[in-house]
Amino acid sequence: MRLRHKPWADDFLRENDHIVVQNPFEQKGKWQQEVFKNNHPLHIEIGTGKGQFIAGMSQQQQDINFIGIEQAKSIIVSAVQKAKDADSTNLRLINENAKDLRDLFSENEVDKIYLNFSDPWPKTRHEKRRLTYHTFLEQYKGILKDDGEIILKTDNRVFFEYSLVSFSKYGLILDEVLLDLHSYQDPSNVETEYEEKFSQKGHPIYRCKAYFPES
Amino acid sequence: MRLRHKPWADDFLRENDHIVVQNPFEQKGKWQQEVFKNNHPLHIEIGTGKGQFIAGMSQQQQDINFIGIEQAKSIIVSAVQKAKDADSTNLRLINENAKDLRDLFSENEVDKIYLNFSDPWPKTRHEKRRLTYHTFLEQYKGILKDDGEIILKTDNRVFFEYSLVSFSKYGLILDEVLLDLHSYQDPSNVETEYEEKFSQKGHPIYRCKAYFPES
Repeated sequence: MRLRHKPWADDFLRENDHIVVQNPFEQKGKWQQEVFKNNHPLHIEIGTGKGQFIAGMSQQQQDINFIGIEQAKSIIVSAVQKAKDADSTNLRLINENAKDLRDLFSENEVDKIYLNFSDPWPKTRHEKRRLTYHTFLEQYKGILKDDGEIILKTDNRVFFEYSLVSFSKYGLILDEVLLDLHSYQDPSNVETEYEEKFSQKGHPIYRCKAYFPES
Repeated sequence: MRLRHKPWADDFLRENDHIVVQNPFEQKGKWQQEVFKNNHPLHIEIGTGKGQFIAGMSQQQQDINFIGIEQAKSIIVSAVQKAKDADSTNLRLINENAKDLRDLFSENEVDKIYLNFSDPWPKTRHEKRRLTYHTFLEQYKGILKDDGEIILKTDNRVFFEYSLVSFSKYGLILDEVLLDLHSYQDPSNVETEYEEKFSQKGHPIYRCKAYFPES
């Protein structure tokens, strides 16, 4: 995605500190009680982009706490605007390059992790950057509840193939593998901006769930 | 596949008893030593159909012993003819409805199991008949070596989705998941009759490997 410098972005994010959490690392282990002030499950999206998915989800599932993480300031501003429009009290955004999610969330704090149209990093030498590389799976394991889930959605075939194998080799169990999500016409599926664009071009959308076996 | 009665089939299969094993259940545990008279790895195909795959494989990999199992007499005759044409000493066929593969093979006797374009049995009430239903996976576990593999190839998207999840939930590890096999132009891929037909129509061909973790 082309990043356009937006000089007003800093002010905009600060002005909307009821949506954009200003000191997210300090909330580790306290998201439910201190930030959302309830005990609803916590679902997070890594790479929220322009926010259509997380804003839509926050409206569809009001008894879930949602957090979207997006490092690009010039992109997250669109998500902030969508969150404002959605007026959801169960949605927060984090503008950080979260190198290790375990700095943001405690063990067993997260119920669900969404990876939507993550950068596929197609070159082999960039494998370590893929969000389904085993070092990331280790982070997810470190913050997910025992019955927690990772939900991956992408239009990139090779990244999906890679991710299924990476999940499986790391010991995750696959569930609901769908190789043409839109053929099912699931009314609960909230589309991302990318998803709308690529499915309109006729690309199949891939989705799967993965969870750790009971230990 | 339409089954045409072929009154000459019985005689044809008996005449070719150097290819069609006449008493296969008696060979359990003795395939290497008694039938092939060597110690090469044993690869089997469940549902060999007209035999293009197994005959092609037997020519490509001459240091492997291949066995194709096909219950339909009127179909296996084509496989027998292909095996005769291939003139491979490393290929045998079994014309049985092998309800339990453990009656044909001992523990640790098989190195690789090929499932090619198996009947997808799309109706939920027929799930138990799918060759990747957990009762079949239990059979495969009962005959595969510790580092043995199952290799599944199909053009049926829903059966492939089902099989990935069934493998994973049964504890198998997935490897080399390919959602468009022919896009890779792998010269070692031996096509089945179905595969030729459906890939020419532009259908993607799916393939994966699955293996049991080291215990």
